Amino acid sequence: MVIEAGRQTGFGHRIRLGMVGGGQGAFIGGVHRIAARLDDRYELVAGALSSEPARAKASARELGLAEERAYGSYEEMAKAEAARPDGIEAVSIVTPNHMHAPVARAFLKAGIHIICDKPLTTTLAEARDLAALVRESGRLFVVTHNYTGYPLVRQARALVASGALGTLRLVQVEYAQDWLTEKTEATGQKQAAWRTDPKQAGAGGALGDIGTHAYNLASFVTGLKLKELCAELTSFVEGRALDDDVQILLRFEGGAKGALWASQVAPGNENGLKLRVYGSKGGLEWAQENPNQLWFTPFGEPKRLLTRGGAGALSEAARVTRIPSGHPEGYLEGFATIYSEAADAIIAARGGAKPDPAVTYPTVEDGLAGMAFIEAAVASSKAGGRWTSL
Amino acid sequence: MVIEAGRQTGFGHRIRLGMVGGGQGAFIGGVHRIAARLDDRYELVAGALSSEPARAKASARELGLAEERAYGSYEEMAKAEAARPDGIEAVSIVTPNHMHAPVARAFLKAGIHIICDKPLTTTLAEARDLAALVRESGRLFVVTHNYTGYPLVRQARALVASGALGTLRLVQVEYAQDWLTEKTEATGQKQAAWRTDPKQAGAGGALGDIGTHAYNLASFVTGLKLKELCAELTSFVEGRALDDDVQILLRFEGGAKGALWASQVAPGNENGLKLRVYGSKGGLEWAQENPNQLWFTPFGEPKRLLTRGGAGALSEAARVTRIPSGHPEGYLEGFATIYSEAADAIIAARGGAKPDPAVTYPTVEDGLAGMAFIEAAVASSKAGGRWTSL
Amino acid sequence: MVIEAGRQTGFGHRIRLGMVGGGQGAFIGGVHRIAARLDDRYELVAGALSSEPARAKASARELGLAEERAYGSYEEMAKAEAARPDGIEAVSIVTPNHMHAPVARAFLKAGIHIICDKPLTTTLAEARDLAALVRESGRLFVVTHNYTGYPLVRQARALVASGALGTLRLVQVEYAQDWLTEKTEATGQKQAAWRTDPKQAGAGGALGDIGTHAYNLASFVTGLKLKELCAELTSFVEGRALDDDVQILLRFEGGAKGALWASQVAPGNENGLKLRVYGSKGGLEWAQENPNQLWFTPFGEPKRLLTRGGAGALSEAARVTRIPSGHPEGYLEGFATIYSEAADAIIAARGGAKPDPAVTYPTVEDGLAGMAFIEAAVASSKAGGRWTSL
Amino acid sequence: MVIEAGRQTGFGHRIRLGMVGGGQGAFIGGVHRIAARLDDRYELVAGALSSEPARAKASARELGLAEERAYGSYEEMAKAEAARPDGIEAVSIVTPNHMHAPVARAFLKAGIHIICDKPLTTTLAEARDLAALVRESGRLFVVTHNYTGYPLVRQARALVASGALGTLRLVQVEYAQDWLTEKTEATGQKQAAWRTDPKQAGAGGALGDIGTHAYNLASFVTGLKLKELCAELTSFVEGRALDDDVQILLRFEGGAKGALWASQVAPGNENGLKLRVYGSKGGLEWAQENPNQLWFTPFGEPKRLLTRGGAGALSEAARVTRIPSGHPEGYLEGFATIYSEAADAIIAARGGAKPDPAVTYPTVEDGLAGMAFIEAAVASSKAGGRWTSL
Repeated sequence: MVIEAGRQTGFGHRIRLGMVGGGQGAFIGGVHRIAARLDDRYELVAGALSSEPARAKASARELGLAEERAYGSYEEMAKAEAARPDGIEAVSIVTPNHMHAPVARAFLKAGIHIICDKPLTTTLAEARDLAALVRESGRLFVVTHNYTGYPLVRQARALVASGALGTLRLVQVEYAQDWLTEKTEATGQKQAAWRTDPKQAGAGGALGDIGTHAYNLASFVTGLKLKELCAELTSFVEGRALDDDVQILLRFEGGAKGALWASQVAPGNENGLKLRVYGSKGGLEWAQENPNQLWFTPFGEPKRLLTRGGAGALSEAARVTRIPSGHPEGYLEGFATIYSEAADAIIAARGGAKPDPAVTYPTVEDGLAGMAFIEAAVASSKAGGRWTSL
Repeated sequence: MVIEAGRQTGFGHRIRLGMVGGGQGAFIGGVHRIAARLDDRYELVAGALSSEPARAKASARELGLAEERAYGSYEEMAKAEAARPDGIEAVSIVTPNHMHAPVARAFLKAGIHIICDKPLTTTLAEARDLAALVRESGRLFVVTHNYTGYPLVRQARALVASGALGTLRLVQVEYAQDWLTEKTEATGQKQAAWRTDPKQAGAGGALGDIGTHAYNLASFVTGLKLKELCAELTSFVEGRALDDDVQILLRFEGGAKGALWASQVAPGNENGLKLRVYGSKGGLEWAQENPNQLWFTPFGEPKRLLTRGGAGALSEAARVTRIPSGHPEGYLEGFATIYSEAADAIIAARGGAKPDPAVTYPTVEDGLAGMAFIEAAVASSKAGGRWTSL
Repeated sequence: MVIEAGRQTGFGHRIRLGMVGGGQGAFIGGVHRIAARLDDRYELVAGALSSEPARAKASARELGLAEERAYGSYEEMAKAEAARPDGIEAVSIVTPNHMHAPVARAFLKAGIHIICDKPLTTTLAEARDLAALVRESGRLFVVTHNYTGYPLVRQARALVASGALGTLRLVQVEYAQDWLTEKTEATGQKQAAWRTDPKQAGAGGALGDIGTHAYNLASFVTGLKLKELCAELTSFVEGRALDDDVQILLRFEGGAKGALWASQVAPGNENGLKLRVYGSKGGLEWAQENPNQLWFTPFGEPKRLLTRGGAGALSEAARVTRIPSGHPEGYLEGFATIYSEAADAIIAARGGAKPDPAVTYPTVEDGLAGMAFIEAAVASSKAGGRWTSL
Repeated sequence: MVIEAGRQTGFGHRIRLGMVGGGQGAFIGGVHRIAARLDDRYELVAGALSSEPARAKASARELGLAEERAYGSYEEMAKAEAARPDGIEAVSIVTPNHMHAPVARAFLKAGIHIICDKPLTTTLAEARDLAALVRESGRLFVVTHNYTGYPLVRQARALVASGALGTLRLVQVEYAQDWLTEKTEATGQKQAAWRTDPKQAGAGGALGDIGTHAYNLASFVTGLKLKELCAELTSFVEGRALDDDVQILLRFEGGAKGALWASQVAPGNENGLKLRVYGSKGGLEWAQENPNQLWFTPFGEPKRLLTRGGAGALSEAARVTRIPSGHPEGYLEGFATIYSEAADAIIAARGGAKPDPAVTYPTVEDGLAGMAFIEAAVASSKAGGRWTSL
């Protein structure tokens, strides 16, 4: 009961935010809106909430947007908002994957900061082009690899960086789900349908949807660069066009090894994202489903269970913690942290300053790395499981 | 990934909310503000955020309140807001316990709905008077026994009500913390200071602060009425004026028995609120620190682990769930659920209708029951541990 | 892989053991036999395995006992064995409770050491008489409060004794089962039948069967003496003559407090024996169902998970550990430790020496303390829940 | 309290057992002796307990063996025991790996049944020869892949065989340890020294020591045949001659996929053997360190936690269970089950019958499969991580 819940206070006026996608029938749009709102850093003022104009406008009405800022298309929105003196400063892109790049280009050209869902694009080439455009634009580009917003993920990263684990040797990461155990996409379920459609999702199924999260998490915590991988992608459900299970061996620069498993056909798993890292001096283990605990195991000493905000909490974790330890924070809070760090960066950028390269939130470069990972994994698997360089 | 995150959309305009208490240096005020904001049902527009006028105004400025609605006292605020056509519809009271009743009276008289922290008051007599006033007023009075907002607590209550546990026999509830293991109040730590001061906290220390939460949770889930109790209150830390540990035996109407343990001197426990209920046909177990899981154990069958939103989720849990199972929701989401249910009730009450007696959020009657529990426990303990009727 | 499994080697010839009770249809007799055999310290050579002579002899045959040492009654056996040059040195008494005292008296009079199940007797008066006889006899009397044989229970005791927890404040102990949730004794199930029959079990049902284990464990680990208790015994199942649920508040000498809960009607619990101890400097927590882990929580430091034989293992635990950490030991191994420590004491006593008062295994005095606990709890409950001195 | 502990009774006279290896300073020999003794099925009567004759005899003396059956060499022992009318019926081979085959050959030729530690030999060629010899000999050959003796491993196998998981898709198995995180073999620690020496251990380090256990467990539970693998073996500790970490991708006949990870350099892991199996209808998960629990997760239903002997226990588990659920059995009990099943088979073979091919304990064929697995993994890794057929 002793920590101040400080993040929600004193941030001056809110950042004007727009959204593309996320209208009626969508899932992740609502999550983005809660995340934006939670720390009171944003106000949603404009949207092109669906690719169908009528649905876009009805959705905007439900959210209480002003009639003239309820746009029928993202192109129209980018143009109109850029022209307004009170136009949006940032836009959230929460469409299916294949629309990320075109929408982002339109808003970057309009001088508007981007907050974009992952994976970045549907092809690596497109991702490279987009990253180049971002670098030129001087605009911020935040990719919502939201799991990096969990306080104990920050603590894990800080522990590794402090040398507490010694030289890293092993990275075991997995993300297991079960919701595609049966052919759900055949039932018309919308989330399943686009995620299993190569045109909308890109070349990776489980690989793109959750494998990239696992890969990003491992990279974020360890700071290791992946050198080569050997992948086995499988579509277990008959007639499914994309992989629903991914097994990958990993070789990192500097000699660390590891494995990544992502599956959507593992009954009994909901969002089983779990990371284990081992070095010459110690190990750590974190699992997303109970994110307020982190195991830290210095070699030769008793295992220690660190809690979010409890004894042993590092400043990197404490600064993104809202409430005392023992009161769980969850997925939405971690997501909100990405938004709030983006808000800090947007405010810093107002003076015309280039964004600070040291910021912690995931950027277009992380999104690009994710696409390189997808491309290499698909290539390796197609070649029968050949080790493939990134 | 298949459940729609629906609660955040489509609620028309926001309810105008004021706040008393919760300024600089406070803890729970910030939690209430996030809770009010999370589902986009409220807009904070006025406040008397501290009993010191200067701090009250500085705190309001930080939160971006309009200058003329940054009040120096709650009396002034109640009067001024009642007079405005755009005055607040509801006020959150987040002061130390001894101020709950006077502030509530002022706003009730001004015709404003109340959302109030617990315990309700510092004495049972005062609680009775306040409850009587609420009943006359026709205003809503919500007590933030926030743990009842957790989806799986709702599921637990629904399971009991469905008869799945058979006739209830046993209620084992506990709330263990460790933050007062040493004499923290002597260090000037503000949260510790007022909670261990009978003038501000009332007759219960751990009893009032967390014992009432445990009692409320047990009552909410089981629906049982407590008949008698036998209490042992102890102040383990030398010179502490109020109890820091509470051991209570329970006899419920209808024959169920149980025990309640609340402690603030149990090293290794952060917010160890845990409930176990057993009946003639089955049992259940829920713990606040990992609130997205609920054990359900029908007698003679394998134990089942229910998850928030997973297989076996009941509608009572699903309707207060924002995101798919496997993505943890936490303390703030449960707190927000209380606020959002209050918002539903406030909107329903706009037509002049009396509040629906079937609403689930905790009311002044629950607050009153909590005060009766405190009074009986203190009396029992003072009498050397005599069984005492409520 | 680094610890030597040493206890099983090099103990010279085996101790000659007899057994009373434990024939066909019994449960605990077989456990005692495995426990005696596990470390190769005993050889079972004689028995009066049932109160029915025919069944006693058939049972002996099954176990491969010599025909002339398969006795029809314990009186005959005590007499005959005392007369043999190769007679038994020790006898295991594994009858229902009401027979413990008469059998023990017979063998003590024959100069034979005793290993006896708990609770010691069916009344406190009988227990006092028996303890007096033991003291006079100079024979060893081991009571199989087997849970004290678990290595991490030894570690917990050593941690408390070392002062690592500071001044003890709280003892929360529980033993929850579910096997008597329904009226199993009415089905003719033998274990249920005698345990719910006051004539065979004594005045306590759940209290005697498992409450005494919980009480013994708490006493063993903390070293605290119980001063007063306040008990609520309930028979939830209609027509059951003895309690099936026990709720007790505890006051220890020196000011520590606590609670003990034992139940046989808590669905979902198998053998949920769990102990938590808290002091001014730290806490610990241990649970029987996963006995190879012990939480140690120094106040203000991260929680530590100690493992049997892992980092931080104390010599008190290591000396009763057979295999490396990570390879679980269980109930039978803990039980065997009691037997093997008894063997050490028996060998020491061969020289005529009085048994070492510092031995760790539970003795007749612990058995006596258990009977005093039962009697006080029954008296307290009968008086309507009055605090009662021991 | 309701299950009879039956296995320990009524088995007639004990099987005469010899042992090769396992003298002073050894570890696993003691485990085998406890395992042999636990259910009272064997009597240890002869031994060549060390390759050094003096140590062999001193070790035998400690164990109480008769002087003339304390042999200085295994050759002498095989010859002498074969010639005795009361010679041993079976021999336990508990030497370092490179001695398994020569010792086994000597005793097979003497007509004596074999119980042998794993891995079977140090090369696949040697394993093939040995297996051929066993087939000719008509003698029993039990390989102590002891983890298959755990009751819930039997239950897992039975669940898979029953079709409860549907068509198998995924097998994720791992065995993580940390005891070789540093260069322990350089300190003279005997267990580390021989396990990291190719001459004594064979071509696999972690691969042979624990990877084979993981592989055997996965094969035992799923019944799947491995078709191809892709392996990455690493020696993280400088100067270590054998692998201390193993990452392997798996392709099974019929289309199932999976991964196997074995490591001895993962700080915080003791004996982290864990198996997860997923099929089209459900999943299961079991971990050796808390072996009395098994998760069974039918798709679309709540997760079920099965306990050893609790509700839902199948006969395959119940028949190898000694004590009621909630009282943990551990490593030694599982090991003893292999020994006791071997005893059943030995008794059956007395009549001259060939051993029943349906027996559950691991045989020379399992040992041979383990050697093929080692050889394929080493070849794959040496080829830079090429997919390799078995």
